[in-house]
Amino acid sequence: MTNEALSPDLEAVVARATAAAPLLAATTATQRAHALVAAADALEAAKADLVEIAARETGLTEARLTGEVTRTAVQLRLFADTIVDGGYLDARIDHADPGFALGARPDIRRTHIPVGPVINFSASNFPFAFSVMGGDSAAILAAGCPLIVKAHSSHAELSDATAAVAAEALTAAGLPEGSFQLIHGREAGVAVLKDPRIKAGSFTGSIRVGRLLADIAANRPAPIPFFGELGSVNPVFITAAAIEERATEIASGYLTSVAGSAGQLCTKPGFAFIPEGGELTAAITASATEFPEHRLLDPRIAQSYDERRTAVLNTPGARPVIEGGIRFDEDGQGWATPTIAVIGLDDFRAGRESLLEESFGPLSILVETPAGTDLAALMPEFYEGNLSGTLHLSEAEATGTTDNADALRALIAALANQVGRVLFNGWSTGVAVTPAQQHGGPWPATTNDASTSVGTAAITRFLRPVAFQNAPEALLPEALRTTNPLGIPQHIAPAGESQNWGARWR
Amino acid sequence: MTNEALSPDLEAVVARATAAAPLLAATTATQRAHALVAAADALEAAKADLVEIAARETGLTEARLTGEVTRTAVQLRLFADTIVDGGYLDARIDHADPGFALGARPDIRRTHIPVGPVINFSASNFPFAFSVMGGDSAAILAAGCPLIVKAHSSHAELSDATAAVAAEALTAAGLPEGSFQLIHGREAGVAVLKDPRIKAGSFTGSIRVGRLLADIAANRPAPIPFFGELGSVNPVFITAAAIEERATEIASGYLTSVAGSAGQLCTKPGFAFIPEGGELTAAITASATEFPEHRLLDPRIAQSYDERRTAVLNTPGARPVIEGGIRFDEDGQGWATPTIAVIGLDDFRAGRESLLEESFGPLSILVETPAGTDLAALMPEFYEGNLSGTLHLSEAEATGTTDNADALRALIAALANQVGRVLFNGWSTGVAVTPAQQHGGPWPATTNDASTSVGTAAITRFLRPVAFQNAPEALLPEALRTTNPLGIPQHIAPAGESQNWGARWR
Repeated sequence: MTNEALSPDLEAVVARATAAAPLLAATTATQRAHALVAAADALEAAKADLVEIAARETGLTEARLTGEVTRTAVQLRLFADTIVDGGYLDARIDHADPGFALGARPDIRRTHIPVGPVINFSASNFPFAFSVMGGDSAAILAAGCPLIVKAHSSHAELSDATAAVAAEALTAAGLPEGSFQLIHGREAGVAVLKDPRIKAGSFTGSIRVGRLLADIAANRPAPIPFFGELGSVNPVFITAAAIEERATEIASGYLTSVAGSAGQLCTKPGFAFIPEGGELTAAITASATEFPEHRLLDPRIAQSYDERRTAVLNTPGARPVIEGGIRFDEDGQGWATPTIAVIGLDDFRAGRESLLEESFGPLSILVETPAGTDLAALMPEFYEGNLSGTLHLSEAEATGTTDNADALRALIAALANQVGRVLFNGWSTGVAVTPAQQHGGPWPATTNDASTSVGTAAITRFLRPVAFQNAPEALLPEALRTTNPLGIPQHIAPAGESQNWGARWR
Repeated sequence: MTNEALSPDLEAVVARATAAAPLLAATTATQRAHALVAAADALEAAKADLVEIAARETGLTEARLTGEVTRTAVQLRLFADTIVDGGYLDARIDHADPGFALGARPDIRRTHIPVGPVINFSASNFPFAFSVMGGDSAAILAAGCPLIVKAHSSHAELSDATAAVAAEALTAAGLPEGSFQLIHGREAGVAVLKDPRIKAGSFTGSIRVGRLLADIAANRPAPIPFFGELGSVNPVFITAAAIEERATEIASGYLTSVAGSAGQLCTKPGFAFIPEGGELTAAITASATEFPEHRLLDPRIAQSYDERRTAVLNTPGARPVIEGGIRFDEDGQGWATPTIAVIGLDDFRAGRESLLEESFGPLSILVETPAGTDLAALMPEFYEGNLSGTLHLSEAEATGTTDNADALRALIAALANQVGRVLFNGWSTGVAVTPAQQHGGPWPATTNDASTSVGTAAITRFLRPVAFQNAPEALLPEALRTTNPLGIPQHIAPAGESQNWGARWR
């Protein structure tokens, strides 16, 4: 099959990925683990060169970018271990059962297989960790799917350099040709996403572009899953008791989280609800001097941030706690210092249209709530889905035994209902790459809130369950054999159980 | 929030489901297990009355319908055990790790919570097992989501009767008001699916309607997941050696599978690829007398089947092996006997436009393939996604050591790539309700091939992951507490592991 809607170059890219699919699906987890670790080691070996390009293209600091390469490498190594461990396959074996409650049951065994070629759209704000060899890419290759990365235009040179390093390592490790390819250009990305041979898409970026791509994926003749991580404003709730206990520490942590990477993080705390009249705003003002000017990623983002900042500060009732600002250099690049505004709850309600939209830059809004405000009710009133929600509690409140314990539990439930990650006494920026991580949330935080784009559960996005019924041992996938040659976790349902199902609950 | 686009009655339904959501989410698994088992017992107690209505409305046999009630009850009981076992929550605990490879890692714990109110569209062909209290409904309630069932118009009276039985049992077991509601009418179903308070949809039915509803779900201002189980033709491949070994047994099994429930099953084998010149067609003809006339579900389905059957038999090169037929009674109901056609591979290729569409009724097509045909290549040539694919092998072929073993392995891989369940020496109708079952497949078999609508994994469709970071023990969900009061499986990632991640694969 070829697709005449594609340019010859893109047709060749998709054809190579399609040809690679069965070969990559047939690799062992150990083979893919070796390839992922080889890519990780190669990226770290090339770190100095890559970080130099990235710093020039993105304006992010060397420290941040160096850490991002380490994160990218660690992620690849964790995924290598994860796929060899095999638990991610959720292998299930139901033994044949002649006494089954619905008549004799055959032997049924279920595992997961790769979905096929996937396109991953890179992010502007994570040139390593959510780009060419970042989290989505690692998950796609770990799952055994051929990967086509669409480079982000704001770090095109870095994308080519990273791809060259990764491709060499992956090829040397023996992955089939066509397992990993890079393309440039939004039109090219859209054309590939529409191709019937592509079986899933992933994306990190804006709500506007994410929605566009998600709609393309959903409205294809054969729809495919599209895993987009879009916008989030990450509300924070800080109790009076927490402020009384550690105002300076909270102020400093908040500002650091807002200002880091010039606030260009999807997990930046965009709003903090604080009680009226506490000492937190003064503590924030006192911490303001610590943050030097930081370049924004590109002129378009800087322009957009400038407009958002002006709109926020011009909202009736909004006052600057830290005025901050943005200046443009001769290249049109914007350089920002943090802006923190404060507004009362009534004015926040009145100004919600202009306030609630994400400000992609170092700006955050404090909302002062009168004593007795039902904080749990604020979540559905103001927010759709978010990636994270945060609480700052006092030591006594953390025991769940204070007078306001019921209100806190209601707030926690309200947060859990609308976000993917609920934090306590911490800050939402910095998303650890670990087995239990959840980076995703109800629309518009993500296009698919049953999944995560960080952590080992991210791999399952690119797998599909398949059951085998009465398959001869010799023809079963190794993951499902009775002899379990891979030594992976297998969930066994023995014969004879069905007659008692549910009996305990009469 | 209210929705003025809804009629007052529907607004009340959605409002009740919305109000029930936090209450139902807060029930324990044990409470929901009691309710599911109570509903199962109540359905079985009312079996005689319900089956009488169902037989009148659907034309399905009493034996089939009685078995379907049992299946529905067993499913509810299995789901009760599943949620109390707790493995379905995939609870993960990452211990805080000061020596984490990317800097100190907080304590992170991840579980799953119900998504909120769900609408389930009932099927015409399973008045119990995929309707009011069927598999999707059981999964939705087991997950802890308020359920709104849209009744199928072809068994409206049964839907009301079943809902009355179920509602009484669920209420008596203590589920909150609004946990379970029934509505009628396609327009009502669409209006509810569009309501922003509804968080997911499920459906069993035709490709045309499923696509319509999936598009509505995907194109809402806030898109939601839509789990549609649509069409499938379930290809079968039978080897020459298998026919030589047991032609009569295969012929009889094939006909039984095609004719059961008048072929109105999404897993009916629609096509069987057989070698040219074997004795299978003769054996099929010899088995033909066993199947009495069977009423089709409703006049619309009967008309449509009549047209499909005529189109198949009029395809150039197609010959009847069993002619069968359909007659219409004075009420417009169609009564059919099985039709089996045979066609050569070249004519099948030429006639694919008219042949490949699903025939919803007791019709199946044998395709004779010349010796040496690359069977694995036929799957992508002819088929998109299917629910199932089947192989019939000889005893020797099942060992994986015959001369054609590589070709068989290629065929198995091709099947796995395009279907949700690969069967050996059996028939795809009859889908056991068990932990390892997979009932789903690539588009157009389902709208979402990462999921299943049969088996315990079906529950996870209506859950969403949430992580808790550094949460105090007293404020954690019970599933994630260190004390593990629910006694459920918890996957622990201890501190100190990250430094060695991937080291084995250098």
